[in-house]
Amino acid sequence: MARREMRHFGWGDPAHVSHPLPDAALELLRARVGLSDVPRPPVPIGAVALPAPVEFDVPGVQLRSDHEARLLRAAGKSYPDLFRMRSGTVEHAPDAVATPRSAEEVRAVLGAGVAVVPFGGGTSVVGGVEALRGSHPAVVSLDLGLLDRLVELDERSQVAVFEPGIALPAAEGELNARGFTLGHFPQSYEYATVGGCVATRSAGQASTGYGRIDAMVVGLDAACPAGDVSLLTAPASAAGPDLRELFVGSEGALGVLTRVALRVRRLPEERRYEGFMFSSFEQGCEALRALEQEGAAPHVARLSDEGETEVSFAMAGREGLVAEVAGRYLRARGVERGCLAILGWEGTLDGAETRRAASLSVLRRHGAVSLGRSPGRAWSRSRFDGPYLRDDLMERGVMAETLETATTWSNLGALYRAVSDALHAHAPVVMCHVSHLYETGASLYFTFIARQREGEEIEQWRQAKTAACDAIVAAGGTITHHHAVGRDHAPYLRHEASDTGLAALRAVKAELDPDGIMNPGKLLAP
Amino acid sequence: MARREMRHFGWGDPAHVSHPLPDAALELLRARVGLSDVPRPPVPIGAVALPAPVEFDVPGVQLRSDHEARLLRAAGKSYPDLFRMRSGTVEHAPDAVATPRSAEEVRAVLGAGVAVVPFGGGTSVVGGVEALRGSHPAVVSLDLGLLDRLVELDERSQVAVFEPGIALPAAEGELNARGFTLGHFPQSYEYATVGGCVATRSAGQASTGYGRIDAMVVGLDAACPAGDVSLLTAPASAAGPDLRELFVGSEGALGVLTRVALRVRRLPEERRYEGFMFSSFEQGCEALRALEQEGAAPHVARLSDEGETEVSFAMAGREGLVAEVAGRYLRARGVERGCLAILGWEGTLDGAETRRAASLSVLRRHGAVSLGRSPGRAWSRSRFDGPYLRDDLMERGVMAETLETATTWSNLGALYRAVSDALHAHAPVVMCHVSHLYETGASLYFTFIARQREGEEIEQWRQAKTAACDAIVAAGGTITHHHAVGRDHAPYLRHEASDTGLAALRAVKAELDPDGIMNPGKLLAP
Repeated sequence: MARREMRHFGWGDPAHVSHPLPDAALELLRARVGLSDVPRPPVPIGAVALPAPVEFDVPGVQLRSDHEARLLRAAGKSYPDLFRMRSGTVEHAPDAVATPRSAEEVRAVLGAGVAVVPFGGGTSVVGGVEALRGSHPAVVSLDLGLLDRLVELDERSQVAVFEPGIALPAAEGELNARGFTLGHFPQSYEYATVGGCVATRSAGQASTGYGRIDAMVVGLDAACPAGDVSLLTAPASAAGPDLRELFVGSEGALGVLTRVALRVRRLPEERRYEGFMFSSFEQGCEALRALEQEGAAPHVARLSDEGETEVSFAMAGREGLVAEVAGRYLRARGVERGCLAILGWEGTLDGAETRRAASLSVLRRHGAVSLGRSPGRAWSRSRFDGPYLRDDLMERGVMAETLETATTWSNLGALYRAVSDALHAHAPVVMCHVSHLYETGASLYFTFIARQREGEEIEQWRQAKTAACDAIVAAGGTITHHHAVGRDHAPYLRHEASDTGLAALRAVKAELDPDGIMNPGKLLAP
Repeated sequence: MARREMRHFGWGDPAHVSHPLPDAALELLRARVGLSDVPRPPVPIGAVALPAPVEFDVPGVQLRSDHEARLLRAAGKSYPDLFRMRSGTVEHAPDAVATPRSAEEVRAVLGAGVAVVPFGGGTSVVGGVEALRGSHPAVVSLDLGLLDRLVELDERSQVAVFEPGIALPAAEGELNARGFTLGHFPQSYEYATVGGCVATRSAGQASTGYGRIDAMVVGLDAACPAGDVSLLTAPASAAGPDLRELFVGSEGALGVLTRVALRVRRLPEERRYEGFMFSSFEQGCEALRALEQEGAAPHVARLSDEGETEVSFAMAGREGLVAEVAGRYLRARGVERGCLAILGWEGTLDGAETRRAASLSVLRRHGAVSLGRSPGRAWSRSRFDGPYLRDDLMERGVMAETLETATTWSNLGALYRAVSDALHAHAPVVMCHVSHLYETGASLYFTFIARQREGEEIEQWRQAKTAACDAIVAAGGTITHHHAVGRDHAPYLRHEASDTGLAALRAVKAELDPDGIMNPGKLLAP
């Protein structure tokens, strides 16, 4: 376990010190949600009870089965994961943690006769790394942290080959040093691994410009219980079904990615993020659609609805420049609640400016009002901070959770309303932003916040989550745009893949993983 | 069979009258290849012997089993297909041709207990529609020509839903009338169908700008022997492996596409194609790489090597403006044999011009010399004529065949030389062009021409084809960039998918098509 470890009960750096919430944010939370007067701190790591480990051995591979190792590989970072950690009620943990140093050692672990849960950054928010053993005698967490090299960078072809366990900041650092970037910045950036992103079809904050991780994969190798799969690195091919697309998003249920070849781009000279206001979410969505369909989209494009805009301004503090400017704009227009967009252009100095000019021309036509660079800088500073904030809220007795979907532009408004309505029945604060643009549609990212119902926190979460998932399915959205399937979304997959489609996927699993040892209970519901 | 029928012995319109080859082209062919003095005309359609049909019935579905119906569905349009037709030595033919009028009728055909060969435009050049029956008592050609509707156009989301059998010109016509385009123009454009393009991962002449067909698919339905598959239309998703990518390129071996949802774009106001000269193929490739990687690529980008440039000029005729201008350019540079590129920009008037300006800046830096619009117009006029020319050459005792591959930019030169060398051992004229650009690499499209060895024409073709395929595999190229796998490339698939990868694909086939009735002998080698 070579990587930096996250704190067991929450997100991120154990040394992280939270800034107190701005008064405006506290006021809003007190008025709308309610805060616990008594802090609800996590139980200490030693006080979290784990089931007794089943002993087993993998010849030639380092295994750890001490309490801390097992605990830190027991779960991801979803709200229920964290609630269980904080309250010391962890149900499942790996019997041991294996840290292979080579693809050969990965194969040895796959041959050990126990269930295997591949573990990259451990950032799953859908139960993707929960240590379920299925019908097997034991379960091992296959920690890929030592397989962390940039194997090769073909600068001419702009193709980088990585081992799976390299963390995104390390990958980005190695590429940057040679003048390149992956351009992949999910909110989990500081801990997520390249292999984990590929295995979960990750999208990042700049994916409107750089493309989702699935658009970057040009080749891969995987170790499966039935044998090794090696897929040719090619820019494009008509050689039958694209088997890369079977392993991208396979979530460790078919095998373990041992190498991935990704398209990289030149490191941008300029990254320019700016704020804009729209008088409604609908107006903003129309502007984003025009940007994308007219080929003038920025690299980063995020549009908050009225609720999220209000919270963003509260978080920025009363005296924040942003809120002031926005307030003036809104009053001048007679609009009570506007919508904030953060747009960002990257590239060469000239390239970013040319692109920005093209965007501005479309934005003006759609009634956008510029707020300048200040909101862009504020967003950029705090772009990876959301998960820390969730921890702070949990400390105050508040449930905060996110979920996401995507659909066509035509269906976006209906899907937005359906999911918002479903969540409002369970949470007083529901907010949303459009986070990724495509020619045919966009994604919606929801956050919902409610006072915890003490003693039934998990059930409370499940009710809200189920209501939202049911609404997504009924309204024709995909069950997940970039969080993946894991355990939480598995029951919904059939609605978009159809039963016969899922049967095909199960057939692939049966072929590659005949004993069903790979990540049991994830992706494909039992 | 509602569609226009192609002539049975060759490409295209039975009313097509060939123009005589320009003198320069005839001279070149006589000197380098040799032409038969005695024309080798095809045998009349009635004189082509077919095996006796096995009788069977599909309740409720129209079947034809007359000689002409069977003959016209017996093969695609590869060189060996056409040679067999011309010489009246057709080995396989469907026992009957079914023309379902609905997805229900497609399902009825799949339930008939006979082998099923889906037939779209019949333009396969890899044996994809050869009427093989496998181990089944009979084989039916499933002609999708009556399923030819644009079902829905969502203008707001830029998504068009098609039935599979609609021909590209009809699809394009319906879209154009409403201000949209698919932007998909393979050389087979005049006959290819939308479903056929999706099933074979087609790429078109403007795919550098509009994307390959696989980049356009946002949803699909398929009828499989095991049941119907229906995949949600979504702009993007992280809901596990992308099952769309299993059916795109499935070549009728898993089931029959019954609906496809494709991303469309606004009909361009401007289509501007121009010619440029480079002093070498290598210099031209570097320019194309820069265009693509700097985000300044045109919609159409084709770069001929020295050999193809020479033939293009000969085909344009001695007096052709192009050849004259090119000649001046070459002499002025002291270059004996230059390379012709055709580049094309599409979009709004402003958009195309802005894009063109960006391209020109890169092109100048890479030593390109403009030949103006005349070569662009000449290319545009004849862009779908290649297959007619092949027929004319066969009439004169000449074998002309094409094949294609793709690889990374770093490997492009080595792959080019390896395949060229392999083909030169079998054909005096070998030429190549780069036809599609990607950030990580490009495609290579080879044409080879040789005097037929009378009496062993098929064996002659097989030797050249095998040499080229072996060279492609050894040099790390994909066995096909856009012609698909069919029967001809099936033995090579394992080199890029690996045996375990192919086992996964076989498992999908066994699940969806348990009796193996779907297009036996294609895609997956027996």
